[in-house]
Amino acid sequence: MTDRFLRACRREPVDQTPLWLMRQAGRYLPEYRAVRAEVDFLTLCRTPALAVEVSLQPLRRFPLDAAIIFSDILLPLEALGVRMSFNPAPKIAEPIRTRAQVDALTPRPMAEAVPFVGEALTLLRRALDGRTPVIGFCGAPFTLAAYLVQGEGKEGFGALKALIYREPATVEALLETLTTAMIDYLRLQVAAGAQAVQIFDSWAGVLAPATYERFALRWVRRIVDGLRDLDVPVIYFVNGGPHLLEAAATSGAGVLGVCWRTPIDQAAARVGPHLALQGNLDPHALFAAPDEVARLAMDVLTRMAGRPGHIMNLGHGILPETPIASVHALVETVAATADRAAVAAVER
Amino acid sequence: MTDRFLRACRREPVDQTPLWLMRQAGRYLPEYRAVRAEVDFLTLCRTPALAVEVSLQPLRRFPLDAAIIFSDILLPLEALGVRMSFNPAPKIAEPIRTRAQVDALTPRPMAEAVPFVGEALTLLRRALDGRTPVIGFCGAPFTLAAYLVQGEGKEGFGALKALIYREPATVEALLETLTTAMIDYLRLQVAAGAQAVQIFDSWAGVLAPATYERFALRWVRRIVDGLRDLDVPVIYFVNGGPHLLEAAATSGAGVLGVCWRTPIDQAAARVGPHLALQGNLDPHALFAAPDEVARLAMDVLTRMAGRPGHIMNLGHGILPETPIASVHALVETVAATADRAAVAAVER
Repeated sequence: MTDRFLRACRREPVDQTPLWLMRQAGRYLPEYRAVRAEVDFLTLCRTPALAVEVSLQPLRRFPLDAAIIFSDILLPLEALGVRMSFNPAPKIAEPIRTRAQVDALTPRPMAEAVPFVGEALTLLRRALDGRTPVIGFCGAPFTLAAYLVQGEGKEGFGALKALIYREPATVEALLETLTTAMIDYLRLQVAAGAQAVQIFDSWAGVLAPATYERFALRWVRRIVDGLRDLDVPVIYFVNGGPHLLEAAATSGAGVLGVCWRTPIDQAAARVGPHLALQGNLDPHALFAAPDEVARLAMDVLTRMAGRPGHIMNLGHGILPETPIASVHALVETVAATADRAAVAAVER
Repeated sequence: MTDRFLRACRREPVDQTPLWLMRQAGRYLPEYRAVRAEVDFLTLCRTPALAVEVSLQPLRRFPLDAAIIFSDILLPLEALGVRMSFNPAPKIAEPIRTRAQVDALTPRPMAEAVPFVGEALTLLRRALDGRTPVIGFCGAPFTLAAYLVQGEGKEGFGALKALIYREPATVEALLETLTTAMIDYLRLQVAAGAQAVQIFDSWAGVLAPATYERFALRWVRRIVDGLRDLDVPVIYFVNGGPHLLEAAATSGAGVLGVCWRTPIDQAAARVGPHLALQGNLDPHALFAAPDEVARLAMDVLTRMAGRPGHIMNLGHGILPETPIASVHALVETVAATADRAAVAAVER
């Protein structure tokens, strides 16, 4: 078994830097597109055998150090009575804009509302049979609220930002409901077999530090607190938040995911030595020629050489048009870290 | 005449903090919507009398300290032979993705290609008769390239980012052409009457520092150099670039526009004392009740109290749904800075 990933999460020594890719089960893989040609996105998420199949696809091609269960951060919102569709972008049937709508949310236990997620995790864990650890995940409350209030993915998520200034108490009530639900959801995933969990705060970067603390970070802290007795590594990933690194480092999560905007050694210096870091090759770097991909990946690795607790990853999800050859170049470059001395010797 | 704005650009003492709003001539004003009900966006931009009318509209309602000519950053690209439409979002007829397309761009002198911009500036300057200074503007080369390559506004502008990694020389050739054109364009605007110019780098925030230096900042530096003999204040505004402040401060522009993500006193500390700063109330803050708008605006002012060279503004363009009452609350709060001692005494 490769336990590099879990060891790096705990900042323990590793034989080589572990690697996985956000959205590694996804559209850049022809075998994923083949599955999706047969079933729609929601059916795929809701059918454990299929979700497990696409979760395993990237591991058959590449020697990745973690599997992540295939799902979507919005799915568990169905447990609150939220109706949505994916065509392919997510759309909330009735965006939440009022206190009455927040109060009308009807949380059900996740095990009852989305049992397929736990079933898929159990199957995935069994299929991997200890060879590769399994990651579960959820959206952070702010990011989920961004979709719920806006009704769809939209740059800036202005509807939620306006509501924050107009009716902060309404937003806090919504965040409280989401926080409770996400604790339930992640606990379900760990009980079903997840060996680590990642909390995606994909849109928190639209906030200034004070607003971030109040409407994003403190709810993530509650989730992390709500998982503490489970003793699984928690990764907190904030996209587009280079100004929020110091704050995000106080979430309680042991691993901080860093987007590509901040050189990772600078991020490490800013957050201090007590966190593991995950990231942060620019996903667009994979559109370069393989030699250049290798050079750019080695730059990230070199910046973290000698610091315990680095999980190599992209700085955001892998893009659908990414050439497979680039992923091979990345994998081979990371494998070269098996000889740490070679990495340390590379000129910065 | 109020010369507060120009004095603050040069970090000279002022009687009160100057205020203008990005997109102050725009859809939040019913009188602007009335004009747009009669003419389409491009006709409005291309008809000097109408462009001047909407540029003057916000000044009739609010005692703002600068006027900005009504136009769009993409308009001068017509001088390169680029065809586009606005419905209402801009769309480039043939997105530029190849070196051949870059080489086929056919720059014409701006005075010939977009004479209406100079005419509008001259009319606006005459209409204001020295009472309020006039700002001209352009898009920064990276931001213009983001639209040209993507073909439309799209979060992340992935097409340009992919091209940067795949064919950096093609992107540099495009940026060179755009830089030359923007120098011509801003010189035309100053000759026609603009007393200061702003360069909008609305999308540079998607870049990490090294990529930003190569594909955004050095082209802005060239533009600033190309205007130096004109001795007009240059404002450089980067949206969503809280990680790029130190770099952006080296553009050569005397004024740095700061988006809302970084508390402005922290931005000031990071860029040092030699720049004036413009900003940075969150545009969404204007959706709060007037008392709260006043409190949030005073927070920004207080953070800059006592530092020469602050131009109050939003941290991005004013939003179409903004209540007029909020703008009044903002204007009144800024007027209170006439007594600087009162500001300094406000508790942080």
